[in-house]
Amino acid sequence: MSDDLALRAERLDAADELAKVRDRFVLDDPEETVYLDGNSLGALPAAVGPRLQDVIAREWGRLRIRSWDESGWWTAPERIGDRIAPIVGAAPGQIVTGDSTSVNVFKAVVAAIRMAGPGRDEVLVDAATFPTDGYIAESAARMTGCRIRAVAAANLAAQIDANTAVALVNHVDYRTGRLHDLPGITAAAHAAGALVVWDLCHSAGALPVGLDEHGVDLAVGCTYKYLNGGPGSPAYLYVRRDFQPRFDSPLPGWNSHRDPFAMEAAYRAAEGSPRGRVGTPDILSLLALDAALDVWDGVAIETVRAKSLALTDFFLECVAAYVPEGLVESVTPVAHEQRGSQIALRCVGADEVMRALIAGGVVGDFRPPDILRFGFTPLYTSHADVLRAARTLGSVLGSVSEGIT
Amino acid sequence: MSDDLALRAERLDAADELAKVRDRFVLDDPEETVYLDGNSLGALPAAVGPRLQDVIAREWGRLRIRSWDESGWWTAPERIGDRIAPIVGAAPGQIVTGDSTSVNVFKAVVAAIRMAGPGRDEVLVDAATFPTDGYIAESAARMTGCRIRAVAAANLAAQIDANTAVALVNHVDYRTGRLHDLPGITAAAHAAGALVVWDLCHSAGALPVGLDEHGVDLAVGCTYKYLNGGPGSPAYLYVRRDFQPRFDSPLPGWNSHRDPFAMEAAYRAAEGSPRGRVGTPDILSLLALDAALDVWDGVAIETVRAKSLALTDFFLECVAAYVPEGLVESVTPVAHEQRGSQIALRCVGADEVMRALIAGGVVGDFRPPDILRFGFTPLYTSHADVLRAARTLGSVLGSVSEGIT
Repeated sequence: MSDDLALRAERLDAADELAKVRDRFVLDDPEETVYLDGNSLGALPAAVGPRLQDVIAREWGRLRIRSWDESGWWTAPERIGDRIAPIVGAAPGQIVTGDSTSVNVFKAVVAAIRMAGPGRDEVLVDAATFPTDGYIAESAARMTGCRIRAVAAANLAAQIDANTAVALVNHVDYRTGRLHDLPGITAAAHAAGALVVWDLCHSAGALPVGLDEHGVDLAVGCTYKYLNGGPGSPAYLYVRRDFQPRFDSPLPGWNSHRDPFAMEAAYRAAEGSPRGRVGTPDILSLLALDAALDVWDGVAIETVRAKSLALTDFFLECVAAYVPEGLVESVTPVAHEQRGSQIALRCVGADEVMRALIAGGVVGDFRPPDILRFGFTPLYTSHADVLRAARTLGSVLGSVSEGIT
Repeated sequence: MSDDLALRAERLDAADELAKVRDRFVLDDPEETVYLDGNSLGALPAAVGPRLQDVIAREWGRLRIRSWDESGWWTAPERIGDRIAPIVGAAPGQIVTGDSTSVNVFKAVVAAIRMAGPGRDEVLVDAATFPTDGYIAESAARMTGCRIRAVAAANLAAQIDANTAVALVNHVDYRTGRLHDLPGITAAAHAAGALVVWDLCHSAGALPVGLDEHGVDLAVGCTYKYLNGGPGSPAYLYVRRDFQPRFDSPLPGWNSHRDPFAMEAAYRAAEGSPRGRVGTPDILSLLALDAALDVWDGVAIETVRAKSLALTDFFLECVAAYVPEGLVESVTPVAHEQRGSQIALRCVGADEVMRALIAGGVVGDFRPPDILRFGFTPLYTSHADVLRAARTLGSVLGSVSEGIT
């Protein structure tokens, strides 16, 4: 069986139309690691180093202050937002980059509560949310006189009612890799007169999101996972075009003013996506992200999704083949329409097992209490990588299992 | 007189103990510009380029996710805060870097209102504040049931009363360069039972601030002016040590949790300066700032202040010598104890005059409605630069004046 799978990996990789995109990344690693943690920190796109060197030496070092105009620094947040837009199915003019995901969750949830209007005082939060969303939503609720209710995302559509101002949902669960029903939950919210804020951290760049197509109200996401923007790279905020005039930001910094350089004492909100800006944009990180987005040239998100499903299917198959029965259990749904781009395996001693895997050259991560998490970035992950990861997991768990027995 | 001033510049530069620090910056500029806009964007420290190249190629490119531990990424916000601390007179453990100044103003003002307690519902704001502080303070007040009152900073001490929760003041006025009385206003606030948030954007790195010495409650500042951290580099937040346990952030992101990687559903605030963190730190920008701070090795802020005053005194003297009488008027106080590190000249057609100055190789900036603003960064500005700037201004205004006559 092992030979069969090796042959399959070879054939799948030979037929992979994204195989050429792998060269757009720096993967020269003396230890030849299989990197399955791109859902935490994406690998380095080759264009970033040279671009940052030019930004630092020429744009900052020589042009200095002139670069705000001449190098296009000032408009970078919305220009880069427009480059992310096609990846998440948004027309231009609706996404702005900057700040962290947490800060953007605050803007989006408070603005949604204000748009929902009085009489709606409940904020629903995905009960298994990545923690920061819950913490920030609670602060947003506290500061607007609302209350929070945690609901399992799978039941969320049925829980939205006339009291709901907004529901905050993760498109893909960070722990289980489960893909939630964005069109269905969005439609249910709209039917009840409520809004939804989608957190796209674990879906953007891995699968089609279809923000415009599904009438999503507001969305946020980070850019350092499947968008490969670098450690802690700026997040983004999507505000549906027809909501932009009503977007009332709780963080109305000078960058969101209609005429920032008039330095007016009174605030007047900008039109369009810049209304979501706050302070001076962080240029080095933004332009690293800008360069990182070059890897998407000519890449369709549908092709990425097809490969992502092929990789995760193949991984499950290899795990079944190499890992002794009963030692791991996948908590990621088998159905494609409920699967993101990661596989999460429940496993006794997951923390220790992950350390052994990393020592063996396979990098995933551990998420408490008992999850081995493997992310599959279709732009640079091959079926051969997947095969090796599963084999290594098999041998790590084989020895652990022998040790226990 | 012109020969006298040239000789004076030469002597002052020869005796300048900070002259050697100039080599820590990249100032090789084909047009040999005199750069007097370091109060907007500091020049490039030489250490930044090589450091970022290593961060990108090795820390991100090779170590990838391991760098959060192995390269010290995770603790960068507080470690870099501790490097800023001595420059603004703070003991370690009270400053955290990250987010923009605007976002930090929001955290500080909301937290101050909450610390001031009920019954105090007024937020005083410096009437000539840099706009973002006013906009954000207004949002903070709106979201906490307070109201805003704008008061001239010079009269602020007398206006703080039993209704005041917090006063938000700029240490140096961005337009006029006036240095406000930090010890006096802080003491007046404390006497009235109120708090003060100081905005140090235009003072940190230019003059001694003495945060601990003067018992300042909270402070924020940017790092891209006199701290030379790069365009839009991360800002910082100072919370006085004894207030840290009561610091109740309106942006309680997962990075401010006591045990972030436990991924707990319930928020529990971290102790110490990390409580001021929000989302995942922006590593590229933070580590550029870290490298930029190397220029401060062995530099005392008192020496910087002495040179700053010498430079601004000398500039005023040269302007008096070279600029035809009556064409400009300094709005920066003459008294040293009221002067920051910039000179602001009121001038008819200031916008057009600044364009001509820049074309002539002297870079300052224009601030509406009628201000020519020149910033003097003692670490890389020489008296010869100052002389040339004043001469160029004289010749630009000389021709304008002839044109008008």
